[in-house]
Amino acid sequence: MKPPLSDDALDLLFRKARTHHTWLPQPVSDEELRALYDLVKWGPTSANTCPARFVFLRTPEAKQRLKPALSPGNVDKTMAAPVTAIIATDFKFYEKMGKLFPHNAAMGERFAGNPQMAEITAFRNGTLEGGYFILAARAVGLDCGAMSGFDNAKVDAEFFPGGSIKSNFLCNLGHGDPSKLMERHPRLDFDEACQLL
Amino acid sequence: MKPPLSDDALDLLFRKARTHHTWLPQPVSDEELRALYDLVKWGPTSANTCPARFVFLRTPEAKQRLKPALSPGNVDKTMAAPVTAIIATDFKFYEKMGKLFPHNAAMGERFAGNPQMAEITAFRNGTLEGGYFILAARAVGLDCGAMSGFDNAKVDAEFFPGGSIKSNFLCNLGHGDPSKLMERHPRLDFDEACQLL
Repeated sequence: MKPPLSDDALDLLFRKARTHHTWLPQPVSDEELRALYDLVKWGPTSANTCPARFVFLRTPEAKQRLKPALSPGNVDKTMAAPVTAIIATDFKFYEKMGKLFPHNAAMGERFAGNPQMAEITAFRNGTLEGGYFILAARAVGLDCGAMSGFDNAKVDAEFFPGGSIKSNFLCNLGHGDPSKLMERHPRLDFDEACQLL
Repeated sequence: MKPPLSDDALDLLFRKARTHHTWLPQPVSDEELRALYDLVKWGPTSANTCPARFVFLRTPEAKQRLKPALSPGNVDKTMAAPVTAIIATDFKFYEKMGKLFPHNAAMGERFAGNPQMAEITAFRNGTLEGGYFILAARAVGLDCGAMSGFDNAKVDAEFFPGGSIKSNFLCNLGHGDPSKLMERHPRLDFDEACQLL
């Protein structure tokens, strides 16, 4: 069996990709962020709900708005990163189903009428899109440093005062300094994580 | 800006990849499933928690155990798929932190002593791994059909009676029949899903 992707591509996306904490001065362009979204958006979501929302903090002013919400250990690396993305979830995603699921107008109403189903759908699928986001960032040549060490309520009050969008996790984006990486953590063996039935 | 991945790779992973409902007779080997996990496992998770678990249903007997839990619209395509994966979450993931986070033995205890943090960490990171799973499956040459239309409690009772592992979503795996695809659903424009600050 030969995978259709080259070894270099598999290394870049998975096998040699690392979470970075130290950033080289090379900037990240808006063009790169748009290229990133133009990949992420194609990832599959339940009934094409596409509930993830992305806020890219590029300026010192935007970073300062985030700073009070960060856990102490995440402040320096986040302030130093060229861009920090807030990966968020729109819990009223169903208001856009007219565009996203045009052949069945009732789909949006089904979610609107079932808050429990809407909530789990939003969180599960917004987080799946978060996974696509990390790999898409690597695919466009960026390094990632994803974090959940922050005060979600503070971020939501500052960036999403409307109440229907909530932060999920953060991801620093840039070009990491490979000389600052520590040894890689072990992973579970196949038989520890998987069953063949 | 030129992405480091080839156009063919970006098409395979994101731009031309589709969710499949009809499967060609070509089988899926255990070797392919192991290659898939050997990519998924490298995706980043919070504190290297790696909470996702994967059960690959390959035999008619295993598929029959799943069948009563499926939504009616998901039965035929799932019974016909070469493999159906249950993407699950181990909510006692912290019991494996001695292996996964060996330099800090207290990390497992931190999660064990904070059930709320453990639960959100498990669901968020297990679902991120679900996103890596879908793209890794494509990277090894498989097509996916992910589904959340099933009775999670029935799946958990049948496959995870211990109680600490719970199903998240299902994903059919195989080689899809491109002639059976319908038109692709629209996606949100950059300005509908993203903000530049």
